Amino acid sequence: MDLHDLIKDLREPSDGKIVMLVADGIGGLAKTPGGFTELETAKTPNLDALAKIGVCGLSTPIKPGITPGSGPGHLGLFGYDPLKFVIGRGALEAAGIGFALTDNDVAIRCNFCTTDASGNITDRRAGRIASEDSAKVVETLKAIKIPGVEIFVEPVKEHRFVVVFRGEGLGDAVADTDPQRTGAPVLDPVAHDAASQRTAEIAKEFHRQAVKILAGQPKANNHTMRGFAKKPHMPSYADLYGLKAACIAVYPMYKGLASLAGMDVIGNATTLQEEVDTLKKAWNDYDFFFVHFKYTDSRGEDGDFDAKVKMIEEFDGVVPQVAALKPACLIVTGDHSTPATMASHSFHPVPTLIVSDLARTDVCTEYGERQCCIGGLGHFEAQYIMPLAMAHAARLGKFGA
Amino acid sequence: MDLHDLIKDLREPSDGKIVMLVADGIGGLAKTPGGFTELETAKTPNLDALAKIGVCGLSTPIKPGITPGSGPGHLGLFGYDPLKFVIGRGALEAAGIGFALTDNDVAIRCNFCTTDASGNITDRRAGRIASEDSAKVVETLKAIKIPGVEIFVEPVKEHRFVVVFRGEGLGDAVADTDPQRTGAPVLDPVAHDAASQRTAEIAKEFHRQAVKILAGQPKANNHTMRGFAKKPHMPSYADLYGLKAACIAVYPMYKGLASLAGMDVIGNATTLQEEVDTLKKAWNDYDFFFVHFKYTDSRGEDGDFDAKVKMIEEFDGVVPQVAALKPACLIVTGDHSTPATMASHSFHPVPTLIVSDLARTDVCTEYGERQCCIGGLGHFEAQYIMPLAMAHAARLGKFGA
Repeated sequence: MDLHDLIKDLREPSDGKIVMLVADGIGGLAKTPGGFTELETAKTPNLDALAKIGVCGLSTPIKPGITPGSGPGHLGLFGYDPLKFVIGRGALEAAGIGFALTDNDVAIRCNFCTTDASGNITDRRAGRIASEDSAKVVETLKAIKIPGVEIFVEPVKEHRFVVVFRGEGLGDAVADTDPQRTGAPVLDPVAHDAASQRTAEIAKEFHRQAVKILAGQPKANNHTMRGFAKKPHMPSYADLYGLKAACIAVYPMYKGLASLAGMDVIGNATTLQEEVDTLKKAWNDYDFFFVHFKYTDSRGEDGDFDAKVKMIEEFDGVVPQVAALKPACLIVTGDHSTPATMASHSFHPVPTLIVSDLARTDVCTEYGERQCCIGGLGHFEAQYIMPLAMAHAARLGKFGA
Repeated sequence: MDLHDLIKDLREPSDGKIVMLVADGIGGLAKTPGGFTELETAKTPNLDALAKIGVCGLSTPIKPGITPGSGPGHLGLFGYDPLKFVIGRGALEAAGIGFALTDNDVAIRCNFCTTDASGNITDRRAGRIASEDSAKVVETLKAIKIPGVEIFVEPVKEHRFVVVFRGEGLGDAVADTDPQRTGAPVLDPVAHDAASQRTAEIAKEFHRQAVKILAGQPKANNHTMRGFAKKPHMPSYADLYGLKAACIAVYPMYKGLASLAGMDVIGNATTLQEEVDTLKKAWNDYDFFFVHFKYTDSRGEDGDFDAKVKMIEEFDGVVPQVAALKPACLIVTGDHSTPATMASHSFHPVPTLIVSDLARTDVCTEYGERQCCIGGLGHFEAQYIMPLAMAHAARLGKFGA
């Protein structure tokens, strides 16, 4: 029996609310072997107080040794086996701007680029054209019409934009048209299977019309297409867990990922405090809240150990407001580790904390990597966080008699 | 998505070298409940120093409660799911004498036996004929010729020898010819599927000729055949990990297992120090080194607790020479536990240590069973050691965006 089928069978109605606080990339590494990580260095009195009464553990985002991107990292947190539910790049980019994909869509990551008179690329990112200029050029591409297919063109940021083809029976096995170097022309889209033949033809026609429209542009006079992808087939939070779920995030990427799981994206927060305010306001309207804090990851990616420590302390600062709402289950975790020493996502497991009246308190007295090693949740794959959350919120019945 | 496919997708070129030091059967048991194991008793200052800066854990060779033989034990360490990649007995016996099997081979474990005038077995092991006598008898069997098939006959030890049939399209689903008791004749080889029909016929003809040749022998005047097996289909270290891999071992079995994984077997070491010397000499020629130390297991199998403690201390003694080579990732582990109190392999998990600049230091201050229980690697299946090693050597990229 599949875990999802089991959860669907066992779930029970309950008023118990679940809050999942995700501090992106919160796990880290010490500056030197034997030292303290960012989280262990940070002063986190509020999280430590919860660790004393809750249950801790280490979450492996995918499998031991595997470093996740944000897509698979969050899919795991949401309870979808990230090796089974794979999000293509185009779908992820569409998710990233909050575009709601349907089952008839193929989404494509596009880059404006600059080509010379002979059609060879001179700049793969069109001089990193400013977002506001780029958005205007994207607007002109909305004139493109191709019979039998609905077309969406949406700006992302700088030279990046998303194209979505909506139509029956469009496959997504089409090769990238970016030659990955300058001095070469944009490639033709080539289908890898019969079902994607028509998608490739549509993409070719789109590019033909686009080049005409873009002819007068000084920088963005051409474009490449990458990561052709359909929407992944995932059961929604309502279908799977019977939860009315909300996403509170600042960055479009996380809103998009949550919407793939069928969560409502609520509020327009631009700061962590605004996110918490949104949570308070919507408290009575939802069963589940995914609250995403970005800057622990950002400062890790910057390679700035001390700044990441500060972000963790900022995160710790809002925790009492969340705990005061008395969710039946409060989860604190991350989608992966982002050690400042590596300035990138990493494979290291993620400190995870569950606070609930049903939590079996362990020996942990702090929320940190070393302590979580010996916590009551053990070392587990991230895809089990949601079953654990459901159980701690008394939302899962007994399996078998 | 399968873990092997994932690793193939994610692997990245790197200069980081990986050394896997395997102390065979290193895990143990205390003489009395509550006491110290062999490893906890041994003075291991060098391993303990590495445990302080590295990350520890317990590796489960197969699944909880399952005791592995050397074959599945090492397959797990090499990153092959030992329940998926099963080595037949004949192939393992061939590996054990360092015989390099090809895809066209069927290997068979043979036993000399003694039969009476009416053809019934009187001794299933031919009086445990001495190895040197047995080897001479094996030599006489090399005269056997069968059209269309190449035949290899190689001595193993005492009454045991290996036969390999090499030819196109030979299946290995052939039943054993050993009746498993005396007073009965050697059975005819019977094929269980169409593809193995010809193998059975060849085996019958081999046996017919062998009995003629052996007619004058006082003890070894007949033989049985067991464990018909083809080479397991395993991706090589080069294919799977992109690693140029070397095996440094004293015993043929481990050389054979490593060669099944596509490792080069290097050097002619007969002692642990010679193995380390081989490692130093070949340092620039390979990305990965599997270094096997046998005697921790041997003394455990002998049931000699104190002698095993001494072997562990000898092993600890060479560790600084290996660490001084500064591998990007140094793994210290075993293929299983061999408690002296049990005088056999056991199911107990195996203390495992990873030293690397990317290791997240945990609370462990010693390399021993109790400490490894609470280490940062947690309790994990041995098949994840290689993904972890690849990650700690910065040889795996990010999964998804």
